[in-house]
Amino acid sequence: MTAPEFHNKVIYENSRSFGTVFKSKCKETFFPDDPFRWLKNEPCTRRTRKTIKYFIPIFEWLPKYNFGLFKYDLLAGITIATLAIPQGISYANLARLPPIIGLYSSFVPPLIYAVFGSSKNLAVGTVAACSLLIAETIGEKVSPTEDLKLYLGLVYTATFFSGLLQTVMGVLRLGILVDFLSHSTILGFMGGTALLICLQQLKGMLGLHHFTTKTGVVPVLHAVFSHRDEWKWDSFVIGVIFLVFLQITRYVKNKKPKLFWVSAIAPMVVVVAGCLFAYFTHAEKHGIAIVGNLSKGINDPSIQLLNFDPKYISAPLKTGIITALIALAEGIAIGRSFAIAKNEQIDGNKEMIAFGLMNIVGSFTSCYLTTGPFSKTAVNYNAGCKTAMSNIVMSLCMLLVLLFFAPLFSYTPLVALSAIIMSAMLGLIEYEKAYHLFKTDKFDFLICISAFLVVSFIGMETGLMISVGLALIRALLYIARPASCKLGKILDTKLYRDVEQYPCATGIPGILILKLGSPMYFANCSYLSERIARWVRDEQELTESSGNVIEFVLLDLGGVTAIDIMGVETFVEVRKNLETKGIKMILINPRRDVMEKLIVTKFIDKIGKENVFLSTEDAIDACNFSLNSSKEVKEEDL
Amino acid sequence: MTAPEFHNKVIYENSRSFGTVFKSKCKETFFPDDPFRWLKNEPCTRRTRKTIKYFIPIFEWLPKYNFGLFKYDLLAGITIATLAIPQGISYANLARLPPIIGLYSSFVPPLIYAVFGSSKNLAVGTVAACSLLIAETIGEKVSPTEDLKLYLGLVYTATFFSGLLQTVMGVLRLGILVDFLSHSTILGFMGGTALLICLQQLKGMLGLHHFTTKTGVVPVLHAVFSHRDEWKWDSFVIGVIFLVFLQITRYVKNKKPKLFWVSAIAPMVVVVAGCLFAYFTHAEKHGIAIVGNLSKGINDPSIQLLNFDPKYISAPLKTGIITALIALAEGIAIGRSFAIAKNEQIDGNKEMIAFGLMNIVGSFTSCYLTTGPFSKTAVNYNAGCKTAMSNIVMSLCMLLVLLFFAPLFSYTPLVALSAIIMSAMLGLIEYEKAYHLFKTDKFDFLICISAFLVVSFIGMETGLMISVGLALIRALLYIARPASCKLGKILDTKLYRDVEQYPCATGIPGILILKLGSPMYFANCSYLSERIARWVRDEQELTESSGNVIEFVLLDLGGVTAIDIMGVETFVEVRKNLETKGIKMILINPRRDVMEKLIVTKFIDKIGKENVFLSTEDAIDACNFSLNSSKEVKEEDL
Repeated sequence: MTAPEFHNKVIYENSRSFGTVFKSKCKETFFPDDPFRWLKNEPCTRRTRKTIKYFIPIFEWLPKYNFGLFKYDLLAGITIATLAIPQGISYANLARLPPIIGLYSSFVPPLIYAVFGSSKNLAVGTVAACSLLIAETIGEKVSPTEDLKLYLGLVYTATFFSGLLQTVMGVLRLGILVDFLSHSTILGFMGGTALLICLQQLKGMLGLHHFTTKTGVVPVLHAVFSHRDEWKWDSFVIGVIFLVFLQITRYVKNKKPKLFWVSAIAPMVVVVAGCLFAYFTHAEKHGIAIVGNLSKGINDPSIQLLNFDPKYISAPLKTGIITALIALAEGIAIGRSFAIAKNEQIDGNKEMIAFGLMNIVGSFTSCYLTTGPFSKTAVNYNAGCKTAMSNIVMSLCMLLVLLFFAPLFSYTPLVALSAIIMSAMLGLIEYEKAYHLFKTDKFDFLICISAFLVVSFIGMETGLMISVGLALIRALLYIARPASCKLGKILDTKLYRDVEQYPCATGIPGILILKLGSPMYFANCSYLSERIARWVRDEQELTESSGNVIEFVLLDLGGVTAIDIMGVETFVEVRKNLETKGIKMILINPRRDVMEKLIVTKFIDKIGKENVFLSTEDAIDACNFSLNSSKEVKEEDL
Repeated sequence: MTAPEFHNKVIYENSRSFGTVFKSKCKETFFPDDPFRWLKNEPCTRRTRKTIKYFIPIFEWLPKYNFGLFKYDLLAGITIATLAIPQGISYANLARLPPIIGLYSSFVPPLIYAVFGSSKNLAVGTVAACSLLIAETIGEKVSPTEDLKLYLGLVYTATFFSGLLQTVMGVLRLGILVDFLSHSTILGFMGGTALLICLQQLKGMLGLHHFTTKTGVVPVLHAVFSHRDEWKWDSFVIGVIFLVFLQITRYVKNKKPKLFWVSAIAPMVVVVAGCLFAYFTHAEKHGIAIVGNLSKGINDPSIQLLNFDPKYISAPLKTGIITALIALAEGIAIGRSFAIAKNEQIDGNKEMIAFGLMNIVGSFTSCYLTTGPFSKTAVNYNAGCKTAMSNIVMSLCMLLVLLFFAPLFSYTPLVALSAIIMSAMLGLIEYEKAYHLFKTDKFDFLICISAFLVVSFIGMETGLMISVGLALIRALLYIARPASCKLGKILDTKLYRDVEQYPCATGIPGILILKLGSPMYFANCSYLSERIARWVRDEQELTESSGNVIEFVLLDLGGVTAIDIMGVETFVEVRKNLETKGIKMILINPRRDVMEKLIVTKFIDKIGKENVFLSTEDAIDACNFSLNSSKEVKEEDL
């Protein structure tokens, strides 16, 4: 009997140098989409031109722009402008800012985005969640009713920090940070925020004067019900009518997507109707509050208001960081999902730079935090936008409004704004998605529901932290307990599969095959060695009756893509443990990174190249050969 | 031509219920070593007896104990007692506690450990790093020279918190937390602490009176050199002689491991020699400080000193948490490594309970934090200990010392203690191991060296945090960027392997096979979809010249052991992306967890069961069949 020969040789020679590995890891970490691939094999001048076009996308699409495209963008731009006016005023109200700031914020930032942004569908605007977060965190430090100028300064400073962080993250290609905000987190956070905002709108709907500045469900409901004497039923009735109207248009849109424009212009209709109503009935004299004081004129410079006083700096810094991340998560996710629908590609890191620049410039020109909100982007997309030109059109419309029509909107009743906000927010409490999570992934549901509950009852930041924390714990739990399984041979094939998944797969006498999970890191070393010991123990108990003794443990490393020093030490430990039991350890198909580490730590020399195989089949043949020959020896001895 | 038939059927039916999955995950997370396996199939009374034996190991080994074993344990116990006396006094000095506390701490805790501990080799005692950490954090709040009673109270409180945390962690089976302290972190942290402690001993060696209470390298060196007028050369010479003696004994031990007892009793020899020298030369009158004031008598109760005053609570709480984790990491790692050497098993979570109980009882009886220090355990092991009885012997020796001989040690010169500590610490700066890390794993080296540098120059807690943080970042980076690779067929085999690792592996025209890394989680979804797009793009560029068009992308999921909802969404997205390019997506060998998730989210129905295969071979056959038949159709059309 001769030993089987293996054509399938394991290769040990092509280890990469540290430099090569490091470069490749950096590329995977920071440049996974290989953004500069077009730089290869290009002459210098074209390279420069391409680089400029890459970083400033407007140079890419503007030269090819034509009237045919413009028709679409004009329509889309006007549509989103009609949405931008009521939303701008409403969300500024939510952030406890003068309503005009909301209009300003739809003028400058879209222009900047049109130059630097790479998405063709994204519509720029303010968002409710960040507006509320700003009101909560900055409002804790300074009350806007007491010192509006300071409050404004801090809000602009927060916007500046957001923009700066976004730009820096984009330049350093730290899009990876945004990856850690999972959809489940965002879903729960947005839902909780929407609930809070809805409840807060009861102030406007009921026409209350006294209210809490806190954002939790409990204090808000308490404030609503403790001022029952202030409830204004006429205001409430008007509010409900507006709300029902808005919800009906939303329903129409959901039923017939082609009628999206009905719900897109509905907020504008509500504002205009509200204005007319307030103007002709002198509603403000009957106790129905109006926005008031919207003067003509474009954005004032606000750079002189930026406030870096150490006494206050912590609030805008914190707000800036949190809103920057939320805005990015929302904006990039939305940009990406619409890009997929059109089969385009957007570069997350480039988007960050565009968002960052528009917020930095925004903070200099009396704008607060903007991003790519879902509602506006969806309308833009549905209205048939072709390029970022629709943002420019919206911006120009806002310019006209600011120059000529702004005062008209000063008659907008607050109750109309409340109805608009409420209607928008009701769409964000996506209980169906949460239910889907519950049905399909309990841990994702836990992440989502804890964000929702903590945001609603305790605080927005805390909710975000806990939810992200849970998501990280899930990731770390994965690392701490990578799944391993026992393989068996599926009858009449050469396939080895998990015996629990494929009960038809059967073990081979004397041999235990384990497939290890990835990675083998410090956090799972003791687990792995204990788990392997348990596999061996269980197998020994199973085979005890049949008289078979385990002589080989085969570790299939085909799924292990990373290992650290403690992982290698685990191999050493496992091998020692097995040897004292008279069992031989064999490695199958170590992947490149693992192989390189096993070579550099000299583990391969220790275990011997004859104990490393390229495939399970080869390893089993070798083991069987050895089992048989030892049996033969025994028999000969007899 | 007929379609190929596949015997290797993918199984879709055996999905587990949420309860089953949850139970199995919990078992893997908290009971990976299946500690209660012996409870199966046992009658009730034996079960109770076994449970008691399990939780209180002394009932397991004591009934079988005999004189033959005791001989070994007696010798080992006496040997570690001779080490416990100088180490106890020295480390108490390091923790800025009265020296007698060090002796107390080697009396009560070993008794408790002997009852509850499961390791047969571990020797209980105080450790240098935790002593220094206590001095640093508690000393920041209260100076022991100003209010010793309060300082003592806070130290006992910290010990109590440590013990409580350790017990709770053990009961809740949170050994998983200790897993996140990697060896590289411990190596760097211990090295940094050892350097700090060495430098601090210059105070004792040079006989300085004025010194800093800070622990950084810079303030300590500054304190040493700014008091050059206080340097006492006679003290220094004595110290160096002791140190050289200790280092020689260590060298002897390293050369001839059988002479381990030479280095084990060397500190005792130094103490005795120092005492005799001080007694006969009246050294204290010549400016060589001695320990002084060691009164006879056993531990006083200290439960009344525990201090939960909110004014001070933060310091002992913080100290308690950090020292608990470090003590566990050190104690469990050491217990485990010696258990492996003897082919025994220890249960980390049970050890935690034992450590916790001994520290809780210790905090009630004038002891401070104890664990299983490496040096003592190694001596115990080498001295041939057989059971935890050696700890009882040591404890009884300490009792004798406390009752009769303690005052003798009051003549111990501080310089002798400094020499003992220095010698012990020099052994802990394991630059060779750090160099090994540098050679084999740069990231592990980074974790280690940053712990070392930050501990030495900034602070112990900060160093620990940064090092643990880096290790976590490594784990999270793995999750964010799991490695995928392109597979090719190795000639004359049916094996598909990474084409970069096995350059002999070649692709198949029209088909791109990718092996995805594990897990598919929220943090890597956008990466994965971008990476797959890049693989496709690269492949298209490669095959463009040869005229081949990619018609199939095969995703080998054999290595993916976990997926969350966003991972499934990634499949949806990737499939959509590929379809717009006219490419069909095919899944190969989804593992059980992945398959269950794909079924529950109905993705399997979406992609169609005909596009999921059990092996790459099958999938390729099916693709080739489809490629050929479409070719035939085309040819027929011609």
